[in-house]
Amino acid sequence: MNRKITITPLTAKAFAPYGDVLEARGAPDKLINAGKCGRFHDRAKVDVMEARVGISIFKADLRALPYTFDLIERHPEGSQAFIPMSDDPFLVIVSDGPETTPKAFLTDGTQAINFHRGTWHGVLTPLAGNGLFAVIDRIGETPNLEEHVFETPWVVTRG
Amino acid sequence: MNRKITITPLTAKAFAPYGDVLEARGAPDKLINAGKCGRFHDRAKVDVMEARVGISIFKADLRALPYTFDLIERHPEGSQAFIPMSDDPFLVIVSDGPETTPKAFLTDGTQAINFHRGTWHGVLTPLAGNGLFAVIDRIGETPNLEEHVFETPWVVTRG
Repeated sequence: MNRKITITPLTAKAFAPYGDVLEARGAPDKLINAGKCGRFHDRAKVDVMEARVGISIFKADLRALPYTFDLIERHPEGSQAFIPMSDDPFLVIVSDGPETTPKAFLTDGTQAINFHRGTWHGVLTPLAGNGLFAVIDRIGETPNLEEHVFETPWVVTRG
Repeated sequence: MNRKITITPLTAKAFAPYGDVLEARGAPDKLINAGKCGRFHDRAKVDVMEARVGISIFKADLRALPYTFDLIERHPEGSQAFIPMSDDPFLVIVSDGPETTPKAFLTDGTQAINFHRGTWHGVLTPLAGNGLFAVIDRIGETPNLEEHVFETPWVVTRG
């Protein structure tokens, strides 16, 4: 029997134990370009230990709801930010650990996220759009990957 | 009298003297997530000298063509990547210096860019979409900004 998880909207407060929500919410920290651009400054905890920060592009297949998964993973040596390159919601699955029930958040189409170093999370799951993401993470030679496979899969639904 | 610049499509080759084009072109460097995601690995020269790399969100007003400008700027202490958060083209203006004619590139709606450290460039100029960009650049206390104002403005047109 599968186990159900219901989606909740992604908010900075709910996501705080897992990472940062990167969004243009509230007043910008600074207005630049003669007032024509607002800078929401330094909103991610980028943390790659002794290594280098890099930018990669991910192209992911679209997924559909209900979405079934049995794998979570984490990167012990670095944070990992996902910037969607289309204005479509994507699913963000996180967990406090293999023994607990994962959480499923849905972005609002204007949000990017940054998983803090060591946060357990699901794989990239765009639900619409071009599936393109810019990824800001640790560039290094180590595997920097731990995986956990649940015996019983989870099913994410709209509720 | 204004001076005209005609837009050309953004390509990695044409943009190479100024920075990196970040796009999912050709085969990915690695397939991850059971083949469902391609990673185009480490595509930007992130270069922030002795400082820290951060992620900020910019929200910029949309601009229209023909687009008139008289300002270019550069950041002597760091590279600066712009990741569009919608799948719309934006204008990328670069220059070899105050004494030369700037160039105007147009992205194809799937491309992000990274200005190399010290590249002269125009301000952020989205032409459509939500005007949201993730910006990966140097976080520090110095101004890290040089500006040049042209006596005679330039006008960017579709040609």
